[in-house]
Amino acid sequence: MYKENYPSKLLEEAVNAINTLPGVGKRSALRLALHLLRQPQENVHHFTAAINSLRDDVRYCRVCRMVSDDDICSICSDQSRDRSTICVVESVRDVMSIENTGQYHGLYHVLGGIISPINGVGPSDLTIKELVGRVAGLGGGEVILALSGDVEGETTSFYIYRQISGYGVKVSSLARGLGFGDDLEYADELTLGRSIANRQEFHP
Amino acid sequence: MYKENYPSKLLEEAVNAINTLPGVGKRSALRLALHLLRQPQENVHHFTAAINSLRDDVRYCRVCRMVSDDDICSICSDQSRDRSTICVVESVRDVMSIENTGQYHGLYHVLGGIISPINGVGPSDLTIKELVGRVAGLGGGEVILALSGDVEGETTSFYIYRQISGYGVKVSSLARGLGFGDDLEYADELTLGRSIANRQEFHP
Repeated sequence: MYKENYPSKLLEEAVNAINTLPGVGKRSALRLALHLLRQPQENVHHFTAAINSLRDDVRYCRVCRMVSDDDICSICSDQSRDRSTICVVESVRDVMSIENTGQYHGLYHVLGGIISPINGVGPSDLTIKELVGRVAGLGGGEVILALSGDVEGETTSFYIYRQISGYGVKVSSLARGLGFGDDLEYADELTLGRSIANRQEFHP
Repeated sequence: MYKENYPSKLLEEAVNAINTLPGVGKRSALRLALHLLRQPQENVHHFTAAINSLRDDVRYCRVCRMVSDDDICSICSDQSRDRSTICVVESVRDVMSIENTGQYHGLYHVLGGIISPINGVGPSDLTIKELVGRVAGLGGGEVILALSGDVEGETTSFYIYRQISGYGVKVSSLARGLGFGDDLEYADELTLGRSIANRQEFHP
């Protein structure tokens, strides 16, 4: 703990506010506050206005719940995408990560979290009902459960699977195995075990 | 470089704004923006208001140029402090660091930077004239040059020394040597050499 006697109440309040950001300690918060203090006033106003606008004016796609500037996001309204496949993810960031791979051309569904009894997050806190509605309207197609591989991710995947498996849709999940370029020696046993069990035909 | 296709212009603008902070890359900026997006609206407004207030309403002590809520800062107005000693520092943060040591009971003078021809900072950009005015009014006493030990710090110290040495004031600088608990083996030669040259009588 970095004890401080602040020379100014305003500085102390700004440091405390910046300190609420994840991964920003008291020391970094002080450094950032003093940095902002040295910037031209209009730059600081632009900085805070951009953050306020984001929080105040952001919208979520009516279909997939992705962050969007419009009622329907650019992915859902893109007619060239495969509309029979829905990739289910936890967060906005996951959509951006998958889009960056350039390997996926279907639609998404953002859950807005993951089932976690410990954090008090149940199925009704997520957009699972909306997902079931979309799946019901698909008439076939595929749902990819792209959730994390931990207990909460698996629980959520299983819950969703039970909700949608009656609609004649193919349900898949992400391949688990060694990362690209990973060394066998350093892989954990669970991952290595799974990547042997799920071994694939070799295409030279 | 982390390439992104942002799903929303508002998100992109917020990320770019946060990305201007020192030490915050695009990836961290995105993480922070999405964090702020998940917070209650009033928390975000409180966050940005604290930063705006700091920049808009902060004041600098008329005497020492320290950040202050009043016309004269709490240190300069504290009558129990030694008013015959002025410690010259580069920044607000240096004052806070020295105050945290609890070892100094005199006054300060914040230069607001350091002489750096490469960055276009000359003596007139700093509060050196104000310092000379204070020293002239001291009538004796001591000025401690507590600037960094690099070339720019040494240059600034020397410049200030020339400006104030005519006023019958004692001028000192910070002791340089091995850090407390430092291992000889890992000390750089310059530091070790100086700490031998400036060796002190042993008090067991």
